[in-house]
Amino acid sequence: MQYSAVRQFSEFLCEPLETEDYGIQAMPDVSPPKWHLAHTTWFFETFLLQPQNSNYQPFHPRFCYLFNSYYEAVGSRHPRPERGLLSRPTVAEIYAYRAYVDEAMEQLIKEKGDRPDVAALIELGLHHEQQHQELILMDVKYNFSINPLFPAYHQPSASVQTPQSKTDQSLSLEFDAGIHSIGHAHEDFCFDNELPRHQVLLREGKLHADLVTNGEYLEFIEAGGYQQAEHWLSEGWNWVQTHKWQAPLYWHQDQGNWYEMSLKGLLALDLDQPVCHVSYYEADAYARWKDQSLPTEAEWEVVAQDQSQEGHFADAHHFHPEANPAHHQLFGDVWEWTQSPYVNYPGFKAAEGAVGEYNGKFMSNQMVLRGGCCATPAGHIRASYRNFFPPHARWQFSGIRLATHS
Amino acid sequence: MQYSAVRQFSEFLCEPLETEDYGIQAMPDVSPPKWHLAHTTWFFETFLLQPQNSNYQPFHPRFCYLFNSYYEAVGSRHPRPERGLLSRPTVAEIYAYRAYVDEAMEQLIKEKGDRPDVAALIELGLHHEQQHQELILMDVKYNFSINPLFPAYHQPSASVQTPQSKTDQSLSLEFDAGIHSIGHAHEDFCFDNELPRHQVLLREGKLHADLVTNGEYLEFIEAGGYQQAEHWLSEGWNWVQTHKWQAPLYWHQDQGNWYEMSLKGLLALDLDQPVCHVSYYEADAYARWKDQSLPTEAEWEVVAQDQSQEGHFADAHHFHPEANPAHHQLFGDVWEWTQSPYVNYPGFKAAEGAVGEYNGKFMSNQMVLRGGCCATPAGHIRASYRNFFPPHARWQFSGIRLATHS
Amino acid sequence: MQYSAVRQFSEFLCEPLETEDYGIQAMPDVSPPKWHLAHTTWFFETFLLQPQNSNYQPFHPRFCYLFNSYYEAVGSRHPRPERGLLSRPTVAEIYAYRAYVDEAMEQLIKEKGDRPDVAALIELGLHHEQQHQELILMDVKYNFSINPLFPAYHQPSASVQTPQSKTDQSLSLEFDAGIHSIGHAHEDFCFDNELPRHQVLLREGKLHADLVTNGEYLEFIEAGGYQQAEHWLSEGWNWVQTHKWQAPLYWHQDQGNWYEMSLKGLLALDLDQPVCHVSYYEADAYARWKDQSLPTEAEWEVVAQDQSQEGHFADAHHFHPEANPAHHQLFGDVWEWTQSPYVNYPGFKAAEGAVGEYNGKFMSNQMVLRGGCCATPAGHIRASYRNFFPPHARWQFSGIRLATHS
Amino acid sequence: MQYSAVRQFSEFLCEPLETEDYGIQAMPDVSPPKWHLAHTTWFFETFLLQPQNSNYQPFHPRFCYLFNSYYEAVGSRHPRPERGLLSRPTVAEIYAYRAYVDEAMEQLIKEKGDRPDVAALIELGLHHEQQHQELILMDVKYNFSINPLFPAYHQPSASVQTPQSKTDQSLSLEFDAGIHSIGHAHEDFCFDNELPRHQVLLREGKLHADLVTNGEYLEFIEAGGYQQAEHWLSEGWNWVQTHKWQAPLYWHQDQGNWYEMSLKGLLALDLDQPVCHVSYYEADAYARWKDQSLPTEAEWEVVAQDQSQEGHFADAHHFHPEANPAHHQLFGDVWEWTQSPYVNYPGFKAAEGAVGEYNGKFMSNQMVLRGGCCATPAGHIRASYRNFFPPHARWQFSGIRLATHS
Repeated sequence: MQYSAVRQFSEFLCEPLETEDYGIQAMPDVSPPKWHLAHTTWFFETFLLQPQNSNYQPFHPRFCYLFNSYYEAVGSRHPRPERGLLSRPTVAEIYAYRAYVDEAMEQLIKEKGDRPDVAALIELGLHHEQQHQELILMDVKYNFSINPLFPAYHQPSASVQTPQSKTDQSLSLEFDAGIHSIGHAHEDFCFDNELPRHQVLLREGKLHADLVTNGEYLEFIEAGGYQQAEHWLSEGWNWVQTHKWQAPLYWHQDQGNWYEMSLKGLLALDLDQPVCHVSYYEADAYARWKDQSLPTEAEWEVVAQDQSQEGHFADAHHFHPEANPAHHQLFGDVWEWTQSPYVNYPGFKAAEGAVGEYNGKFMSNQMVLRGGCCATPAGHIRASYRNFFPPHARWQFSGIRLATHS
Repeated sequence: MQYSAVRQFSEFLCEPLETEDYGIQAMPDVSPPKWHLAHTTWFFETFLLQPQNSNYQPFHPRFCYLFNSYYEAVGSRHPRPERGLLSRPTVAEIYAYRAYVDEAMEQLIKEKGDRPDVAALIELGLHHEQQHQELILMDVKYNFSINPLFPAYHQPSASVQTPQSKTDQSLSLEFDAGIHSIGHAHEDFCFDNELPRHQVLLREGKLHADLVTNGEYLEFIEAGGYQQAEHWLSEGWNWVQTHKWQAPLYWHQDQGNWYEMSLKGLLALDLDQPVCHVSYYEADAYARWKDQSLPTEAEWEVVAQDQSQEGHFADAHHFHPEANPAHHQLFGDVWEWTQSPYVNYPGFKAAEGAVGEYNGKFMSNQMVLRGGCCATPAGHIRASYRNFFPPHARWQFSGIRLATHS
Repeated sequence: MQYSAVRQFSEFLCEPLETEDYGIQAMPDVSPPKWHLAHTTWFFETFLLQPQNSNYQPFHPRFCYLFNSYYEAVGSRHPRPERGLLSRPTVAEIYAYRAYVDEAMEQLIKEKGDRPDVAALIELGLHHEQQHQELILMDVKYNFSINPLFPAYHQPSASVQTPQSKTDQSLSLEFDAGIHSIGHAHEDFCFDNELPRHQVLLREGKLHADLVTNGEYLEFIEAGGYQQAEHWLSEGWNWVQTHKWQAPLYWHQDQGNWYEMSLKGLLALDLDQPVCHVSYYEADAYARWKDQSLPTEAEWEVVAQDQSQEGHFADAHHFHPEANPAHHQLFGDVWEWTQSPYVNYPGFKAAEGAVGEYNGKFMSNQMVLRGGCCATPAGHIRASYRNFFPPHARWQFSGIRLATHS
Repeated sequence: MQYSAVRQFSEFLCEPLETEDYGIQAMPDVSPPKWHLAHTTWFFETFLLQPQNSNYQPFHPRFCYLFNSYYEAVGSRHPRPERGLLSRPTVAEIYAYRAYVDEAMEQLIKEKGDRPDVAALIELGLHHEQQHQELILMDVKYNFSINPLFPAYHQPSASVQTPQSKTDQSLSLEFDAGIHSIGHAHEDFCFDNELPRHQVLLREGKLHADLVTNGEYLEFIEAGGYQQAEHWLSEGWNWVQTHKWQAPLYWHQDQGNWYEMSLKGLLALDLDQPVCHVSYYEADAYARWKDQSLPTEAEWEVVAQDQSQEGHFADAHHFHPEANPAHHQLFGDVWEWTQSPYVNYPGFKAAEGAVGEYNGKFMSNQMVLRGGCCATPAGHIRASYRNFFPPHARWQFSGIRLATHS
């Protein structure tokens, strides 16, 4: 992966933003875009420039405090829910910070980029930045969604370039009973939580060929799904009632018509497209209502190992899920909820040092999602990639693929 | 199981209580003892007497509202956090309610007790009541613990009758790599969440022979465990800081000495006894600090299937965990945290009807505990029995057994 | 005032209670009846027995912590919102505490009761206890009101003995423009906040002859008063919306009929009786809707100085306001909201010592009420007596008398 | 007052802001600067352009919703605590809004500016805008104060132009016992809450010649004032403890030295300058600790009626209080807390129509402050001007002047 290419893509994603848009944090879970731009930069400054270069002068003495996310080992930090209260540093200052660090990084890459430890940290930093690229899109969407003006992040481009049809559909979505292996299997990069590769025992079944669509999900709504406790986990039912959920996160009903807030602004709901921005509670309730299941993450991965990565990613510049009849779309478009809580793999070891706080410490009260989405940078995803969110979260691009077990 | 014996044991457990003690709810998670006495009675009235006997006259028209716990299918109910705000019905009225229902139940048992559906619901109701017997003890302990007078529920009896030594220690605590079966295997009663029995794949390892003791846990405290983020899950660290946790729930430090609130009042901490009233977060942090693991629930069950039920249960009238060098004590004394989130077994089907809300709907954000404790009625526990609590909960009698994986 | 008579009246008021009723605290503002019984006893123990008798042995070493209300000078204390979480000390123990302190007090009265400083503190303690007698009735009413069984504190006695008609109605309710004096004017007891007597400047006007009735207030409700912001203070409108106020505190509407929770249980609303349990916000909104005002406390007192104390007090054992056409009822039945914030009189000096915390420190964000109510012990009230509550409070027996200014 | 001059001064005050600074709302009480710019514009659009010009086309259909502050009569509005979550409309759009409305207003002034009703509303709108000018300064100061970078709003100018000495000091600060008149007495503009002018009865006393200084207030801190309950109102003491108050709002202690956040950034505390940003609770506690009082608003106004307006206002561009030995400074520099709750004057009538919501509906739980401050536009203040804040508020420029009563 190219340092400058990844770094530039973050800035490319921010091009449509007004200066004002960079600072908004409309709920504690999201961060202002400028914070993402700075935090990813802080990562390189903290884990590479400072340890590797004793002459390195940090750009600003307080940025370590302001832009540390959750690394306890690195020291105290600005409270997460208050990230949107800071007008300073300005957007221009943060771009200057990026330029300053990029220059030092290019120098470091030249000097020590071949050292395996340095190379590994750079690679981690770039994958980290890609995750924040997706977060920028998720967070801008949320920030705009609560604005009564429903601003558009970008204008609808011409129709999405549907990836050319391949014979993908003939690939099997079945998984056999018995012992399989999951976890990252190759030499190239993966996060620590994808390791070690290990055996799992599956029962027989298959993934459904298509993602659940808006139209199918609407049937659940119209059948009274949000008013009937029997479909829901107890905590899910509490969320439905406490937060008055009636539909997926960005759906609006006006005079009998359904609309969906998107990064292109408010759109009429397209019933043929994949449902998106549902919580685990909603995915689980929908599956129970259909008398089906969600797949486990092992089932999903066993099937996905043999699939090619056909689907829409961030490089399509569409930023909205789109069905593609020619493909199963295990990858891209929407993250797929699994029924698996996010736990460590047998024999898991967190990475050494502060970057060991990256994944392992979040292994409680979260569910695994698989496959990437339309906001995920192309090339960032893998069959073994494990994303995770609390079961009530739904501002990520999360959808539903059902599974049937025999 | 004998209807009258189980019902009487609930009342036996309440004998040491003052009238005032029956009404206290010192936090939303606990319920007043009189609520437990009434709710278990409501269970028989609602699921047996009313459906089976068309002439049955409910004891009081509002008790269905007051004493429904969480059964959505049965209708609305009094808000859980407000159970402690009701002085009426009085304790005497609730005992009258119990007598009224018991008389009707004895009649029903005589007339229809042999019908399998009726017998199954009675058995469920009795196991349900046993669960609330443990809750009465847990909840009274909590209610008394926040009283500055530290009342004792009962006076220390003479030393606990340690179950006579058996050759239990020679039984292996190892589990082999490969496929094993877990889940209830017999004809007798189990809860729906213990089914179906199914295969699991284990890696090799063994459970530790002894429970972690107060003295061992104190080493963790004294080594700064509650001040060092690196041992903790991220959410656990938040709880530590938000709630200013410094030790297990009922520990008090006074002038350098440690005390433990118990159902016998405040006791000097006995370093040789099993640590109790720790959350999953604490159990997990302790294990990480020791560079060990908690067992999975499958590992625990595979080992426990071959163990006899040696340990202290509620019939010992001790209500406090006690080490027993002669036994491994997988059963009794303290519930043992596992590293397994509480999810459904492959092919799980919730029971039919309202009682189907019993277990399945709680399968999110909870961790499994195994083995029963000193407050569990004898005979209530099984190797396949799955208890569950959120990872922050610690007013249950929960302790720690470590596991080593090769 | 007779020490034993006042003390016995507290216990007389508790006679209808079940043991369970003594411990309930259904919201932070109320206290359990047993707390009132103990706190009033603590007052004598703390401010009289301990300072005056060096041999005095406190009844229990922790009662000073448990039953101090808000006297910072006396030390730390049990948190107010947790008073209802304590089953111990039991009701029996608290009656024993009262007996123990009463015996010591009778001895003290015999020995030192003639000393002016001692006599003054005893008198203060008795007036303090009378205030808590009213609180017991207020708090029991609230505790019972949130119980779905709507328990009755006492059974409706035969019709209230209406005080014999006097020529009271001929007394003027007018106040002249110019300088008047208010504040306690006599040698006998008053609280520090009634002093010093001082001059006030009034404009001309008059109090209305009758209290606002339930029927009149219902007109405000039926005219949409609770749906129209224009009648309300801004904060009042927030309370209406946040707490979904639709009517006075204890009113219930069922199938078109209005009921009122009372100490006799749920009663059909009597339209001719004085409206009660309204907040200042409601009293103020009602007055504005009628294009009238509430009186200032000075106006009220100037008129009341010439009125006799005709009205229903706690000694009537009715505990519910009742109109009396023969009287203006400035005293008794319901406390009358004034438009005056509770501030100190010019030259106010708080009492010396810890009892100086009695009144002065509450002089912010409260409004003055005047005249006593059906739960106020007879003889406790005066024309100069200043009661005070925050403008949103309404569990006290508070009603409305309008005033007209020329 | 000149329409364009007032409007331009708002924009002048915003000149030092970065685009990012316009959108911040660091606590619910403050509003983003751009909201102030838009809301004051909305006032003219809503109360003048729309009613007076049937052809007027609002700038944007949703701005009425977005920029209504609290006028219930004008319809629903965007929730106050969420004003800082809106990146759109952008700052540029809001300046365009201002230009659009200003152009229409200039036209309206030309056509109907002589009509008394129109002129009165324009004058009200300009005084309203002046109030928001002060709020812009208050709110920017707060927003910057919680930023770890402590940004400066403007650079310290050369020393403040101290108004030339007059013989002001010889003017008496005494007030005599007896009847005086307060309330606005002239033909020119005042708010409805300054009327009607009416008689008040004062006792004898005098205002202190100087404002309490930082140095004097520091003595209170160093004497343990924030640790001693006896100086405080009960609610004030709760605030001290709940919010861990140790000093005025913007004071910081670092290695034994005191600093003060100002609109020039963090400054060393100047002990000779007036203390500022104290709550009523702190002002009251300080006065009690000094065994003095705060003045009533009537006392203050009776004295101020004879004083000239010497002091620093916003036109000095200093935005920080500064002592001036040559003057008593009743006006300017800091608002002076009085001991008077904010209530209506006898015979008060709110203005007709929606603008009647301006003042009267806030008359509960607030205290009156008098005299204006260094952020108040020159010419905005009067002896009869009544400012008001809740007793815990302290982000306004509020200070302390003591009074002595004989």
